[in-house]
Amino acid sequence: MEVAREEFARRGLDATTVRQIAGRAGVDPAMIAHHFGSKQQLFLAVLQVPFDPAVEVAQVLEGPREELAARLLTRMLHVWDSPAGAGAVAAVRTAVQSDDTAGMIRDLALSRVLGPLMETLDGTSEERLWRANLVASQLIGLIFARYVVQLEPLASAAPAQVVASVAPTVQRYLTGPVGREH
Amino acid sequence: MEVAREEFARRGLDATTVRQIAGRAGVDPAMIAHHFGSKQQLFLAVLQVPFDPAVEVAQVLEGPREELAARLLTRMLHVWDSPAGAGAVAAVRTAVQSDDTAGMIRDLALSRVLGPLMETLDGTSEERLWRANLVASQLIGLIFARYVVQLEPLASAAPAQVVASVAPTVQRYLTGPVGREH
Repeated sequence: MEVAREEFARRGLDATTVRQIAGRAGVDPAMIAHHFGSKQQLFLAVLQVPFDPAVEVAQVLEGPREELAARLLTRMLHVWDSPAGAGAVAAVRTAVQSDDTAGMIRDLALSRVLGPLMETLDGTSEERLWRANLVASQLIGLIFARYVVQLEPLASAAPAQVVASVAPTVQRYLTGPVGREH
Repeated sequence: MEVAREEFARRGLDATTVRQIAGRAGVDPAMIAHHFGSKQQLFLAVLQVPFDPAVEVAQVLEGPREELAARLLTRMLHVWDSPAGAGAVAAVRTAVQSDDTAGMIRDLALSRVLGPLMETLDGTSEERLWRANLVASQLIGLIFARYVVQLEPLASAAPAQVVASVAPTVQRYLTGPVGREH
């Protein structure tokens, strides 16, 4: 785990291989696969994120496109309001400390949340990446305002109330005019 | 400074007095006023925030209401993109670590940014506070995505591009439909 944290922090998720980690740790790569599963799952374990955001996102991709933001936010609030959410809050609090670990959060967001979302969008890859960045700016802010800074009444508001207010923003970032269309 | 940090973290900005801090530190309250100015300025010094957000917000309140979000975002990006912004990034990174210091960021946001903004809005105090919470969720997220997590292309995007994409969100939170109007 220590070696994996160092390698991920130094090289990023994409450039790090399980073989490198196993080599430096002096263990067989098969042992890492046995204990942690995939490289992605090892990465989540290193960051101590208690759920896989990609699994959660996959559950909301199906359904009417114009309600994608509402489904995404409803699911996100459900998970972050749960006991697992407390572990995720602790993970992001710690991760934003240094550029290295903040980079790991960036990799996590891109590979497990924004990547899957981008695949469902229309437009050029440049436009879809911009939309994903905007979505991230609102989701990250909602997480920090509600769970970390605990701004009231946002921190105690019913999920449906939050979704009603914030979904139009996320929906516009996903499918509406954002000033970078062709 | 140490005593002030402890008192602010324990009681919050409103309930802490310069007299209490001076008493516990064994100094004259006038000495604190001489070195730091107001309680608010002492608070900014403790958090090591290198500018006063209230001064920045005051500069954008004048002007057409329907362009308030664009002015606010333009000003915010100008300050956070400047050398002083690096100090502010370090301050928020550190402050989100514990509930005590995250509470100080909450107090700072409420007293220096959201309070002045709320005074310019219409509606009941409950509705204006909800709007201010929503604005905070987008501004906090933009700060973390652009400056802390450094998501690309958001981190390198021209300020005008960011304003064009995000201002409609902040403007709706300030003056548009947010699902909690009368």
